[in-house]
Amino acid sequence: METHFQKELEELKENLLKMATMVEEAIRESVRSLVNRGSDLAEKIFAGEDQINAMEIAIDDMCLRLLALRQPMAADLRFITSAMKIVTDLERMGDQAVNIAERAISLNQESQLKPYIDLPRMAEITQSMVKDVLDAFVNRDSKLARSVCERDDLVDGLNDQVFRELLTYMISDPKTTTRAVHLMIVSRCLERIADHATNIAEDVIFMIDALVIKHHADTKEKGA
Amino acid sequence: METHFQKELEELKENLLKMATMVEEAIRESVRSLVNRGSDLAEKIFAGEDQINAMEIAIDDMCLRLLALRQPMAADLRFITSAMKIVTDLERMGDQAVNIAERAISLNQESQLKPYIDLPRMAEITQSMVKDVLDAFVNRDSKLARSVCERDDLVDGLNDQVFRELLTYMISDPKTTTRAVHLMIVSRCLERIADHATNIAEDVIFMIDALVIKHHADTKEKGA
Repeated sequence: METHFQKELEELKENLLKMATMVEEAIRESVRSLVNRGSDLAEKIFAGEDQINAMEIAIDDMCLRLLALRQPMAADLRFITSAMKIVTDLERMGDQAVNIAERAISLNQESQLKPYIDLPRMAEITQSMVKDVLDAFVNRDSKLARSVCERDDLVDGLNDQVFRELLTYMISDPKTTTRAVHLMIVSRCLERIADHATNIAEDVIFMIDALVIKHHADTKEKGA
Repeated sequence: METHFQKELEELKENLLKMATMVEEAIRESVRSLVNRGSDLAEKIFAGEDQINAMEIAIDDMCLRLLALRQPMAADLRFITSAMKIVTDLERMGDQAVNIAERAISLNQESQLKPYIDLPRMAEITQSMVKDVLDAFVNRDSKLARSVCERDDLVDGLNDQVFRELLTYMISDPKTTTRAVHLMIVSRCLERIADHATNIAEDVIFMIDALVIKHHADTKEKGA
């Protein structure tokens, strides 16, 4: 029979997954507002951010309550303290989506510099990272968490590629500079989101394996 | 008479302050390696990063142990869970210092684009933010924490100024573009460090006042 505490942990998991879905959605919509040049979409992202922020506070409160009232040990303790770190990362991913939407609004006011190919690809990968890392967390699946860390390299590679390409635009035609810088920032926001997902993945692996892979050079690529 | 638990909390505070001092030092040295064009300094920062990472793991472990063994309530519980979030922010500040050092190494291989004035100023402010926000945390000083949030606006303002100035360089002379982008990234790293300090300040205020100022628009400036 399920105890009350187990039900509370289930509820915590559901809330985390719900928050992750909101963040995924924010990333998708922010890049869509850029690619489809739809600044009206941005409004939706700003509204969604308030909900993400409210979720962060609610989940954090829930964790504190569980720690105080249930005084969990070992695996449950680590699960709850990890959840508190994860919501912080999720909330900051939401902030990055807002940054992207803000850049999209600026970019949509001018003619399009180039077809957007790598940025939507980066967005897709980062969304998959957010989804999978939360699944890995609630299902205690360290293999899935490791696959998230691996995808971070893909995103870093695409970010470098986007930077190089945009540098070429700027150097050959200074009139493109402002737009190119906006796009660089979008690329960097996506790269930051992937970093946050990777941070969570490292926490998940640590939680499951009680193994600190966090600071092994081979698993962490520094952002540009 | 001091209990054993109080001594452990004191030790936790000391370790947090020690880690913050290491991060401050890393920020200072990374910008010094840029301003003094001393790439050899960068090596020191890379070594320092390992120590910062080790501190993160040690403090996190200590917090988990305190939660499990002492089952603290109310104020102590919040203090320990906040400490776990704070070390994450401190560690990421350390990562940003490494990013700055990497950019400095690249920049030091070419002629200097311009005298560096705003970047050292930004570095000074962010160092003061790191120092003060940790002091605010261990001394439960919400007034000091609020002053850290205010300084974030200064850093954001300087970051915008640096961006605009560098854009002008790039537009008027495309040969400057690569160096200007490196410098933009240094500026953004400093702005990110200030954001981390502000995140901690918001946690500190929340911890002290049990008041969520976190998501009030007037206290949070989005990064560019």
